Amino acid sequence: MTKREVGDAIEAAMQERKLTFADLAERLGRPRVWVAAAVLGQHPFTPHEAKQLVAMLDLAPEAAAVLEQIPTRGALDGPVPVDPTIYRLYEVILVYGPALKALIHEEFGDGIMSAINFRADVERVPDPAGDRVRITLDGKFLPYQWG
Amino acid sequence: MTKREVGDAIEAAMQERKLTFADLAERLGRPRVWVAAAVLGQHPFTPHEAKQLVAMLDLAPEAAAVLEQIPTRGALDGPVPVDPTIYRLYEVILVYGPALKALIHEEFGDGIMSAINFRADVERVPDPAGDRVRITLDGKFLPYQWG
Amino acid sequence: MTKREVGDAIEAAMQERKLTFADLAERLGRPRVWVAAAVLGQHPFTPHEAKQLVAMLDLAPEAAAVLEQIPTRGALDGPVPVDPTIYRLYEVILVYGPALKALIHEEFGDGIMSAINFRADVERVPDPAGDRVRITLDGKFLPYQWG
Amino acid sequence: MTKREVGDAIEAAMQERKLTFADLAERLGRPRVWVAAAVLGQHPFTPHEAKQLVAMLDLAPEAAAVLEQIPTRGALDGPVPVDPTIYRLYEVILVYGPALKALIHEEFGDGIMSAINFRADVERVPDPAGDRVRITLDGKFLPYQWG
Amino acid sequence: MTKREVGDAIEAAMQERKLTFADLAERLGRPRVWVAAAVLGQHPFTPHEAKQLVAMLDLAPEAAAVLEQIPTRGALDGPVPVDPTIYRLYEVILVYGPALKALIHEEFGDGIMSAINFRADVERVPDPAGDRVRITLDGKFLPYQWG
Amino acid sequence: MTKREVGDAIEAAMQERKLTFADLAERLGRPRVWVAAAVLGQHPFTPHEAKQLVAMLDLAPEAAAVLEQIPTRGALDGPVPVDPTIYRLYEVILVYGPALKALIHEEFGDGIMSAINFRADVERVPDPAGDRVRITLDGKFLPYQWG
Amino acid sequence: MTKREVGDAIEAAMQERKLTFADLAERLGRPRVWVAAAVLGQHPFTPHEAKQLVAMLDLAPEAAAVLEQIPTRGALDGPVPVDPTIYRLYEVILVYGPALKALIHEEFGDGIMSAINFRADVERVPDPAGDRVRITLDGKFLPYQWG
Amino acid sequence: MTKREVGDAIEAAMQERKLTFADLAERLGRPRVWVAAAVLGQHPFTPHEAKQLVAMLDLAPEAAAVLEQIPTRGALDGPVPVDPTIYRLYEVILVYGPALKALIHEEFGDGIMSAINFRADVERVPDPAGDRVRITLDGKFLPYQWG
Amino acid sequence: MTKREVGDAIEAAMQERKLTFADLAERLGRPRVWVAAAVLGQHPFTPHEAKQLVAMLDLAPEAAAVLEQIPTRGALDGPVPVDPTIYRLYEVILVYGPALKALIHEEFGDGIMSAINFRADVERVPDPAGDRVRITLDGKFLPYQWG
Amino acid sequence: MTKREVGDAIEAAMQERKLTFADLAERLGRPRVWVAAAVLGQHPFTPHEAKQLVAMLDLAPEAAAVLEQIPTRGALDGPVPVDPTIYRLYEVILVYGPALKALIHEEFGDGIMSAINFRADVERVPDPAGDRVRITLDGKFLPYQWG
Repeated sequence: MTKREVGDAIEAAMQERKLTFADLAERLGRPRVWVAAAVLGQHPFTPHEAKQLVAMLDLAPEAAAVLEQIPTRGALDGPVPVDPTIYRLYEVILVYGPALKALIHEEFGDGIMSAINFRADVERVPDPAGDRVRITLDGKFLPYQWG
Repeated sequence: MTKREVGDAIEAAMQERKLTFADLAERLGRPRVWVAAAVLGQHPFTPHEAKQLVAMLDLAPEAAAVLEQIPTRGALDGPVPVDPTIYRLYEVILVYGPALKALIHEEFGDGIMSAINFRADVERVPDPAGDRVRITLDGKFLPYQWG
Repeated sequence: MTKREVGDAIEAAMQERKLTFADLAERLGRPRVWVAAAVLGQHPFTPHEAKQLVAMLDLAPEAAAVLEQIPTRGALDGPVPVDPTIYRLYEVILVYGPALKALIHEEFGDGIMSAINFRADVERVPDPAGDRVRITLDGKFLPYQWG
Repeated sequence: MTKREVGDAIEAAMQERKLTFADLAERLGRPRVWVAAAVLGQHPFTPHEAKQLVAMLDLAPEAAAVLEQIPTRGALDGPVPVDPTIYRLYEVILVYGPALKALIHEEFGDGIMSAINFRADVERVPDPAGDRVRITLDGKFLPYQWG
Repeated sequence: MTKREVGDAIEAAMQERKLTFADLAERLGRPRVWVAAAVLGQHPFTPHEAKQLVAMLDLAPEAAAVLEQIPTRGALDGPVPVDPTIYRLYEVILVYGPALKALIHEEFGDGIMSAINFRADVERVPDPAGDRVRITLDGKFLPYQWG
Repeated sequence: MTKREVGDAIEAAMQERKLTFADLAERLGRPRVWVAAAVLGQHPFTPHEAKQLVAMLDLAPEAAAVLEQIPTRGALDGPVPVDPTIYRLYEVILVYGPALKALIHEEFGDGIMSAINFRADVERVPDPAGDRVRITLDGKFLPYQWG
Repeated sequence: MTKREVGDAIEAAMQERKLTFADLAERLGRPRVWVAAAVLGQHPFTPHEAKQLVAMLDLAPEAAAVLEQIPTRGALDGPVPVDPTIYRLYEVILVYGPALKALIHEEFGDGIMSAINFRADVERVPDPAGDRVRITLDGKFLPYQWG
Repeated sequence: MTKREVGDAIEAAMQERKLTFADLAERLGRPRVWVAAAVLGQHPFTPHEAKQLVAMLDLAPEAAAVLEQIPTRGALDGPVPVDPTIYRLYEVILVYGPALKALIHEEFGDGIMSAINFRADVERVPDPAGDRVRITLDGKFLPYQWG
Repeated sequence: MTKREVGDAIEAAMQERKLTFADLAERLGRPRVWVAAAVLGQHPFTPHEAKQLVAMLDLAPEAAAVLEQIPTRGALDGPVPVDPTIYRLYEVILVYGPALKALIHEEFGDGIMSAINFRADVERVPDPAGDRVRITLDGKFLPYQWG
Repeated sequence: MTKREVGDAIEAAMQERKLTFADLAERLGRPRVWVAAAVLGQHPFTPHEAKQLVAMLDLAPEAAAVLEQIPTRGALDGPVPVDPTIYRLYEVILVYGPALKALIHEEFGDGIMSAINFRADVERVPDPAGDRVRITLDGKFLPYQWG
C-alpha cells in the first residue's frame, strides 16, 4: 500500500461518512491544514493517530504503518501546477515572489522564512463584496548563518 | 527604457538615500507589498505616483511613462525559483498546495482564491524561539460560475 | 474509480446509445460546453445530475460519487497540446495572446478576463466559402484591485 | 531593425500621441485585433499601410520595410504564458480544450478550426454584476481531407 | 480498448498473416500512408472499413467502435523523436524548416501548407548509387485571411 | 561577423534589389531550397559562390569567409517550432511520423532516409480547389549495416 | 509481449545459465555490442537468430516474433542519462562534441559520421596504472550531398 | 575577454593563415582532439602554450591569461545537440548506451569509463565502400570503490 | 522482480522487525550510507550479502539475484528533487557549487572529486543551539589527464 | 554594475596579484567556502568587508554597494549542471540523495538539514593511492514543527 492509496481510501471513507477535514482535525486535536496535508501524503501521523484513523474510518489494518512513514514529499505532477485553484498560489509567487523576498530582507536581513518550522491556515473572511479566502503562511525566520 | 531598468534605477536611488520600501509606501500612501511589487515591474503606478517617484528619487523624466505602463507580468527567470527565499514559497505549494485546495473547497465549494482581487502582507511576529515571518495572502473567493 | 474512468464509461455509453453531448446537455438543462467539460472531468455534477446520468446511461452506482467530486483540473498531457484540433487554440494564444491582452487593457484598464466566472460556446456559422467554427469565450472582467 | 524594435517604437509613439489600437485600426481600415497583432510583430502590413504608419507616427523611414516583412510568428517567451491576462487564455485550453474538440467533432465531424483563415474580436459586454470580456474566435472549419 | 491496443492487435494479426500495410491499403481502397496512420491511431476508419478490418483480421468485435472514433492525435512520446528513422524527419525541419518557410512565402505569399487538407506518400526511387526514399508532403496552401 | 548577421545582410540586400531566392538560385546554378538554407546559415557556400554573392549583393568583404564556413547547424529556437508555417511540418511528424517509419521499413527493411545525402524541393501545384504546396523530401536509403 | 519484456527474460535466462553477452555473440556469430544492443531492444534479430535464442534460452515461443520486429529505437528514459556509466559518454559529447565535429570537418569536409552504417566495440586495454576501457565508434563518413 | 571570444579569435586567425588544428597540435606537441577542445574552451593551456599561441596567431596579449584559466566546461547550448554531426554521437548513446554499459560491466565489473583520465582520437579509415570515421574513446576504468 | 520491489520488501521487513539501516550495516559489516543506497537500488550486494539479507529478512528467494545485479543508477524522479530533505542538498549545489569548484581547482588544479571512488557519511553533531547534520563527501581527486 | 561583473573584476584582480580565495579568506577573517561563494555572488559582504575588498583589489568604488546587496541566489545556468566538477556533486544526489534522506530520518526523525544555518568546507586529504577531496556539509537539523 502506498501513501496515495491510503489517502484515497481515507477520502472515500470521509465522503461516505460525510466527514470533513475539519472534523478529522477536531478528533485528532491537530490543525486542519496539517491534517489535510498529512492525509494527502505530506506528513507522517503518530502511531496513536494512525490507529485512531484506522479505527474511525475502518481502514485496512496495514494502513497504519503506511500512515506513520516519513514521506517523500511533493504533491504536484509537474513543476507548474495546472489546477486553477493551486495555480493561483503559483501565480502569486510569479507576481509577488521577489517583492516578498525584498520585504523579508528589508525587515529581517538576509535569510528565509522556514518552510519546515512552519504552519499555515485558511480562513473565510466575510466581506459584503464577496467573501474572501485568507491564507496565512507563518514560518520561523532563519538568518543566513555560517555556523 | 524598460520596467527592469527603471526598477534598477529606483533600487539604486533607494540604497543611496537609505530609503526602504516601507518609506516609499508611506510617502505614496500604498501598502508595502504593492509598492515593492510595482517597483519590481509587476504593477503600473498612477501618473501622479509616477511623477512623485521621479521627483523623489531624481529619476530620468522618461521613467514616468514607463512606470505607468501596464506590465507584462511574471518576475522569475524559470518555472522553478532558484533563490532560496523565493523557493521556500514554492515548496509550500509543493507540500501544502493540494491541502489548501481541499480546504478551500471544503469551506467555500468549487472555486478559487483570486490572485487579481488580492492583497498580501508580510509581518514580523516576535517569538522567543526566534521571530517569525507571517505572510498573509488574501483574495476574493471566486466560485466557478458559468455566467 | 477515477474521473477519467467514469468519463470513458459515459462516452462509451453515449456511443452505444447514439447520444451526443447536445442531447445530454438538453436532458440536464445545462450548456453543451459545460456538459462536455464535466464529462471530461473538469467540473463536478450536482448530486441530482449525477444520479440522472447514472440512470440514463446505466453507469455503475459508485460513479455518482465520483461525478460529484470537485476535480483536480487540467485536461492535457503536457504543456503544449499535440492534438491538431486543440493545438490551433494554443496557436491562437501564441500569435494573438499579446494582442488580446493589449486590447483588454485598452478597453478595461489593468486586469484579466476571468476563467472562473466564465462561459464558452461553440457554434457553426454557415458560410458559402465553407462553414466556420465560432468559439465565444466570455468571462467577467476582473480589475487588479488590492482589496 | 527588428519587428520588435519597430513595434516598441510604434507603442511609444502611440503613448506620446494618446493614440489607441482602436484609433490605428480606424485610420488603417483594419480590425483592431489584427492591427494590435501586426504591431506586435505577428502580421505583415501592406506597403501602403506601412507607409501610412511611418508617416502617422513619424517612424524611421527604414521601419516601412520591416513592417512589410512576413514575420516568424510566435509572441510568447516560453511554452506556458506567465502573464496573468494571457495565462487565463491558456487555462481555458487546459480546462475546456478537450471539450471544445469534442463539440467541434460532434458538430462538424473530424477536422479543425483554422487559425489561418481566422479572425478574432474582443468586446466589452456591460453586465450589472460587472462588465464582461467577450472574445470571439472565428475560423473556417477544415475537415481532414486526404486530397 | 484503446486505439493503441487495437493498433497492436492489427499489427500482430498482420504479422501472422504476412500482410503489409500495402495489402491493407489495397483491400480498403485507401492510400498506404493514410492506412498506416489510421492503424497507428491517427485517423478514424469509416464504419464500413472498421467492419472490414475486424472481419479480415479476426479482431475482437468491440474493436470496430474504437476504430471509428475520432482520435486524440499525436503519435510520439516526447517533443523530440528519439527513433533514428523518425528523427531524420525532425532534423529536416531543424535544418531546412526556415528555408521551406521562406520559399513558401516567396511563391505563395503569407500563409501555410495545410496539414489537414493534406496527403503524403512514400516511394522507392531506384538509383544506381543506392535506392532513395522519396517522401511527398502535399497540402493545400492556406493564405492568412482575416475572414 | 556571424552566419546570422551575414544572412540578415543578404536578405536585406535581396529586399532592396527585389531579388528572390529563386533569382539567387539561378545565378548560382544551385537548387532553391539549398540556396535558401545556405543563406539562412545551414550550408557552406563554395569560395567561388561566396565571392559571387559578395559582389552581386555588395556585402562586406569579410562576409565571404563567413559564408564558406561549415556551420553549426540547427535553425530553430526551441525543440517545438512556434511559427505556424514551420509548425505544420512538425505536426506532420507528430501525426504521420510513425506511419512513414512503418512504410519505409515495409518497403526497404530496417534503416532510415538519409538527411545528409538528401535534397528537398517546394513546388506550387495548381488546383481548382485552391493551389497546393508540394514538398518533396528525397534522401538515400541507408540500411542498418554493422560495418 | 514487448521488446523490453523479452529482453528482461533473456537477461534472466543468461544470469541463470551463467551466460554472458560474449557467449551469446559467439554462438550467434555476431559482434558483442550488436548482440547486447539487440537484446536491449535496439536491433531486430533475423528469424534464424530469433529461433536460436528461443531454443538456447528456453524462451516463450511467441518471443521469436518480437525479436524479429524492427524496433522503435531509443533506450534512455530522458534526454540526459542519469546512470553514471552512461552519463560519462554524454559528458564526452558535452566536452568534446564540438572538437570532434571540428576535426571531422578538417579531415573530411562537410558531413557526418553515420550512426546507421556504423559499428562499435568495447575493449579492455591492460595498463599498469589501471586497465582502460577503449570504446571504438566506427561509422561511414557521409558528405553533405544534395543528390 | 571570455574563453569563447578568444576561441573565435583563434579560429579566425587559423582561417586567415590556413592553419588546421592538426598544425596547431603539431606545433604545441599535443594531440589534435585535446587542442581542438582546448581552443573551443574545454581545457586550460599551460602558460607556455598560451604564450606560444598568442605569438603564433598574433592574439591580443590579454588572451594568454584567458587561455590559462580552468574553464567552466560544457560546449553545447541545450541538453540535446541539434547539429547533425554532433547529434549522431548523441544518437549512438540513445541506441547503444545501455549495451556499452552492459559490456563494460560484463568485462570489468561495476564501474565506469572515466571521462577525466581520458583521451579521444579521430581517424580516417580508408574503405572502398566509402572512407570511415573512427572515433576512439579511451578512459581508465574506475571501479565503484567505497574508499 | 525489480530492484525497487525488492527494496520496498526490505523496508517493509525492517519496519516490521524494528531494524534500522544502522543495524543492517552492522550485520553486513558495511558502512551505513552504502547499505541504505544499496537497499534503495543504487549498489549491487555481493552474493554472500544478498543471501544474508534474504535469510535475515525472510525475503523471497529470487530476491537474491536481483540484489546482486549491477543497477541502472539514478534515484530521483526528475532533474530537480521535490522532497525538501533532498532539495536542500540540491540547493547547496545551486548556491555553493561554483565555489566548491573554484576551491577544488585552487587546491588541486584542474580535475574533479570522483563520485565513483567515493564514500559518504552522515553524522549527528550535538550542538547546544540545536544538533547538526554533518554530511561528509569524500572522493579521490582525479586530475584531467589525457592518458 | 551587477554582482557578476564585480565578481569577474575580483577574479581578474586576484589572478593579476596571484591571490587565492584562501588569501582573501585569511585577510577578511572568513572561511574559504564562504568567501568564494560571496565573490561568486551568493552572499552579501558587510560594508566593512566590501571596503576592504575594494581597497585591496583596487576595484571601482561603486563595487562596494554591489558587494553589500543581498543577492538573488542561484549560480547555475540550468537545472542540471554541465561542468564535470560540479556535475559530480549532482550525481551524488542522484545516487545517494534518498539514502542520505533515509539516514537523516533514522537518526533525527522527520526534518531536514538546513542549507541556511549551514557551513561547508573543502579539504585535501593525503592518501598514498591518490589524494582525496573531502567536502563537509554541516547544517542545523530542523525538525518538521507546526509552530
